[in-house]
Amino acid sequence: MKPRSLLLSFCAASILTTPITTQADETNPNIVHRQGIYKIAGGHMTSLKSILALGFEAPADVSFHAQGIMDAFSHMGNSFPPGSDKGQTRARKEIWEDMDTFKQRGKDAYAAAQALRDSAGDRSAELGAFKKMAKACKACHDDFRKKK
Amino acid sequence: MKPRSLLLSFCAASILTTPITTQADETNPNIVHRQGIYKIAGGHMTSLKSILALGFEAPADVSFHAQGIMDAFSHMGNSFPPGSDKGQTRARKEIWEDMDTFKQRGKDAYAAAQALRDSAGDRSAELGAFKKMAKACKACHDDFRKKK
Repeated sequence: MKPRSLLLSFCAASILTTPITTQADETNPNIVHRQGIYKIAGGHMTSLKSILALGFEAPADVSFHAQGIMDAFSHMGNSFPPGSDKGQTRARKEIWEDMDTFKQRGKDAYAAAQALRDSAGDRSAELGAFKKMAKACKACHDDFRKKK
Repeated sequence: MKPRSLLLSFCAASILTTPITTQADETNPNIVHRQGIYKIAGGHMTSLKSILALGFEAPADVSFHAQGIMDAFSHMGNSFPPGSDKGQTRARKEIWEDMDTFKQRGKDAYAAAQALRDSAGDRSAELGAFKKMAKACKACHDDFRKKK
């Protein structure tokens, strides 16, 4: 697969890694904390994109970035308490209306990151796992994140 | 120090954690890679802000986030080759005109993250180290990053 077509096939990843802007005047600690956690994950996705879709020369770093996403999620803590849908946040009310599904999407994304980490070293497997990771992010964003 | 005044004293941190937007159509692997790395660091700073300035309940996570910044910087790789000042990037030409100073600022930021990690467990020391970390970020942004 040529780099260009590979890049196009990963267009979803680009959408997913669009950062959530943390507004300087948002003071709800839960909102700011979760925005930080997702920004870490998004940064790892951006770096993964540079390596797997654009040819940045750091093949050994795929496992680092996949592990980084897992570690970020593991440090989410109590970032979505009831009432934290109010503020400078793109979190949709559906999160609190269907917390079970929201949590499952998080688990799915974690599992996808784990699969990506475990695929490290086999470029073809890495590419497939990265694509699945991007889809896992998107599945959650589609239902639980407000559009800009 | 009251949370509000503490927050104001960390206004610099908010500026620093404003994410660098990765444009979906930027295809320079070096540019995309470094934007990912800085986004990871920015995400950790945002989470640190939520813990240290806003009172998010995850005191044990300070060392995790400080280490995360160190690890991100350690995976920068060859992200600033000559010519990569062209594109959707906020990197200023001064980086390549004075690479020694730019690299030193990176080392300073790394050392500040290390000091923050080593201060973990002592809230007063953590706060001081976090403030120095924010200053280290800002020192580099002021000279080497384009304004939005």
